[in-house]
Parts: sequence; C-alpha cells; structure tokens
Amino acid sequence: LIRVLYSGICNTDIEIARGYAGFAGVIGHEFVGVVEQAASAPEMAGKRVVGEINVGCGECEVCRAGDERHCFGRTVLGIKGRDGAHSEFLKLPARNLLEVPANVSDQEAVFVEPLAAAMGIAERTEIAADDKVAVIGDGKLGTLCAWALAQITPNVVLIGKHASKLAISAKRGIETKLVGDLPKSELRQFDVVVEASGSESGFAAAMDLVRPRGRIVLKSAFHGKTNWEAWRVVVDEISVVGSRCGRFAPAIEMLATRKWEVGDLIGDEFHLTQGIKAFERAEKGGGLKVLLRT
Amino acid sequence: LIRVLYSGICNTDIEIARGYAGFAGVIGHEFVGVVEQAASAPEMAGKRVVGEINVGCGECEVCRAGDERHCFGRTVLGIKGRDGAHSEFLKLPARNLLEVPANVSDQEAVFVEPLAAAMGIAERTEIAADDKVAVIGDGKLGTLCAWALAQITPNVVLIGKHASKLAISAKRGIETKLVGDLPKSELRQFDVVVEASGSESGFAAAMDLVRPRGRIVLKSAFHGKTNWEAWRVVVDEISVVGSRCGRFAPAIEMLATRKWEVGDLIGDEFHLTQGIKAFERAEKGGGLKVLLRT
Repeated sequence: LIRVLYSGICNTDIEIARGYAGFAGVIGHEFVGVVEQAASAPEMAGKRVVGEINVGCGECEVCRAGDERHCFGRTVLGIKGRDGAHSEFLKLPARNLLEVPANVSDQEAVFVEPLAAAMGIAERTEIAADDKVAVIGDGKLGTLCAWALAQITPNVVLIGKHASKLAISAKRGIETKLVGDLPKSELRQFDVVVEASGSESGFAAAMDLVRPRGRIVLKSAFHGKTNWEAWRVVVDEISVVGSRCGRFAPAIEMLATRKWEVGDLIGDEFHLTQGIKAFERAEKGGGLKVLLRT
Repeated sequence: LIRVLYSGICNTDIEIARGYAGFAGVIGHEFVGVVEQAASAPEMAGKRVVGEINVGCGECEVCRAGDERHCFGRTVLGIKGRDGAHSEFLKLPARNLLEVPANVSDQEAVFVEPLAAAMGIAERTEIAADDKVAVIGDGKLGTLCAWALAQITPNVVLIGKHASKLAISAKRGIETKLVGDLPKSELRQFDVVVEASGSESGFAAAMDLVRPRGRIVLKSAFHGKTNWEAWRVVVDEISVVGSRCGRFAPAIEMLATRKWEVGDLIGDEFHLTQGIKAFERAEKGGGLKVLLRT
C-alpha cells in the first residue's frame, strides 16, 4: 500500500478518459509515494518509491522469464484492471517498487515512468554511437526520448512545431528543428526516427526522414485506425518498431546524474481535489507536465 | 545484351500495368536468358543466366558497400528507368548476372528472382531454428516464402484461402491451414508472421497472429494508403519489417538441391506474342505463375 505524494498526467490518461482501452477505475500511472504497508516486504515501509506499472500473473512463460510487461494476464496501473495513481493511495506488489535517491525530488521522481519508456527504445532496437537519430514531437514524451537517446549518440535532432518547447532541449545541447525547417538534403538520411507526436502526420514525416533499411520507432499509442503507405515500408525495407514501457532502474540512474533537468518540463501543479481542473489544463496543452499532489 | 528465353509475370507487373510507380517502358523482371553480347565480360557470352534486377549508380556509399538494391539513383529491370524482361532482349550489367546450373530448367530458373525475394526475409530479420512462423497468403510469393523459411525452421504454417494452392505446399511437408481454421489458442503465438497476401485483411490477420515483441514481415508492395491499428504495434511492441529483393546466389543453390519443385507453381505458358492474353490469364488468377516464352 503506497501513499501517493505526486502523480503526473500523461497523454495516455487523457486518451483513457476519452474511452481508449475501455478502462473503468482510477487512472494515473506516473507517481512517487511512500510505502505505507508492505506485509510481504516490511523493510520497504516508509521508503519513498516509484513503481513499475505492469503486474504479471507470475506464472506464465513471459513472467517466469522476468518480464511482466507482456504477460497476457497482466494488470497495468491506472490502465488495465488496476486502480491507478491519481488517488491518495494505490497498491502494487513490492517487487515493482524502487526507492528514489535523495537527490531526486518528489516532482522529478514522477518522470521516472515516462523517462523509462523513452529509454526503453534502446531495448527494442539497437542504437549505435554513430546512428543519426530524429525524434518527431516536442511534447514531454518526444523531449524525454531525445534526452534518452542523446545518452547514446550525439547525433540526435528533435523536431517539433513549438519553438518554446524545443528551446528546453536546445538549452541542454540537443539540436532542434521546427517542422518544415529540415532541408531536403536531410530526407531519407536518418538511421532511426522516433515518432512521439502521436499524429498520423508525424508518422508520415517519419517515413520521409528514415533512410532505406532504417528504423521508425513508434512511441505513441493513439487510438483507432490510421493510414499509412505500407508499400514504402516494403520498397525501402524499413522496420517499424513499437515501444511501450521501459525498465525503471536506468531511468532513476539517469535522473540521479542531474545532467538533465526534468523540472523544466513541469507546466503546472494542482492539488488532487482539483483533478478535473488539472486535466483541463493538461488537455489544453502547452505540452508541459501537469502534476497532482495529495 | 541478353536474349530472353522465358520471363515470368509477377503481381508487381500487374500493379505496374495499373499505374503503380508510374513506370513507362517494357515491364517484367523475372527471366532466364542467354548472354548475346558482353563487351566488358566476353567470357559470359553464350551462358544461360538469370540477373539481379537492381542496378545502382556504382558511386554512392550504398553501392560502394556492395548493395545496389537501395541506391537512390538505381534503375530496376522492368520497374524503374530500365526496360524489362517481357521482350526478346534486355540489357543488364555483367556484374548482375549469375549462371544457371544445368540441373535447373529454363522454366524453373524464372523462379530465382521471387525465391531470392522470399529468402531475403532472413536478411531483414533473424529467423531462429525454433521460431514459430506463419505465412499469410497461398499465392506464389507466400508459397515461396513458406518454402524458404522451412529451410531454417520446421515450425512454418502457411495460411491461405485456397485448399488447392495449399496442397502444393502440404505435399512438400509444410503445415497448412485455411484462413479461419486456426484455433484461438494459436492467436498471438507466432514469433514471425509474413504478410504475403498483399491485402489489408492479411495485415490485420498478421496482427492477430503475432506474439508480443514478435515480428511481422511485409512482403507485398500494394499501392496506395491502407489502414492499420498502429496502437497495437506500440502496446504489444511488435516490429513490422519491410522486405523487397533478395540475393540470387542462395536462391539458385536452393533450386539446384531439387528438394523443392517450383514447377508445381507454373500455371500456364504463352508465347511472347500472346502477352496480353497471358496477362489476362495472370490477372484472373488461379494464383499460379504464368510464363512467357520467346
């Protein structure tokens, strides 16, 4: 049992609130909290923790191989079969919890989940130190993807529609470009293109940027059917690689280095009782993270 | 300069005839012929050959790395900037040509190109000896894909709509299933699913069959935009891998083993002067290969 300190509103929460995935219950999957009760792991009591959001059955082949993220019978915090983090309390198995180092603040710790998701890209497709990478989407997810990949290769370009959002990454030494400002000579040149804008046009742009035999990483789970030109995937022998959740430990380590200031990505903070207002704020955008505190 | 003996009508020819790729010229890219003139390689004269269809500029990075298939300036026999094989004569660089072994007949040699394309799957995604593989589409391409993959793993299932076409593979020891006959317990269980039906429904079926973190290989270049549920690629962390042309040498070797009888895939044969009739026959289907002889 965890007493939630802060939770973060993710675009997925907004999609779920619109009916995506048919989930009914408490939403929210980004959080930091304090362990209130832990019968099976009493040493955890009182610790400040974040928690991996997938809870597997523990018995299937996938779970026994140590990865609950793809268990067919899994519950997912605030997404599938398990009440989530926009609440005073939540429940997760002790094995899902990781302690937060003292030099990472409560607000920053909320970013462990999305940062882990961003770092999970490298779990899905090998990124080489000389790979040329483009990230499409200057929202929170795209920004974290760019930061995560900049740990691996210096050749990362973040592409977005908002100069103010791009500036957050430019300040940290990431190359940024406004959509449309990329010269024609850059088309079909990128080894890896990460689609983190969650839009059909973002995917089309990724197709224009990726080189033959390159890889497009899909990070955004937008609902419904979308269009694509599958024939281009065949002719240019592109790989389209889906990526969802990452491991928490490397994300905590990255935050603890304090090389990247996720605090720059916080747009606003509301008390949990102002949850509806907080959601309206998150939906209206500006694109920065809206936090809920208890 | 090659005197064509036989050429094969590919579904891509039919698509091109409908306007796909905006090609104007002689179509056809599957052939066997005899070298008539070869100024730069006189030792080739008189040899019975097949030929790789991509011709690169020879100067760019891709070409210098030994792979002309993705040269931006390439021509492609009967597809892009180069007259093709449904003709008495065609021209290809000597470096593209491979001699056909004596134990492979003219008609069989026409299958080197599509068989190479099928075998090219393994160039795009590693197939392990214990991978569970489904191939969707019981046409020529799907059948050749199933045969090519059966060289690597015994766990290949060919799925199609036509009992008569499936029987060709069943006779060679491949497990086959009619669409819809696959039990629910088989859904989301395949490590690799090859989409070789060229239809939107084929891709949807592939999504149903592939396991989380599995791979869908796209073999068919159908034109225009199609629909897909991109969110499933993200949530199940699927990889969608495009595959176009393969190397000829391994395909020639496979035919020379005579373990697989591509002759079973020949539906009809017409003289080149009956080309229009041959195309009508190929379009009407039955799904077997229609050959043109000079």
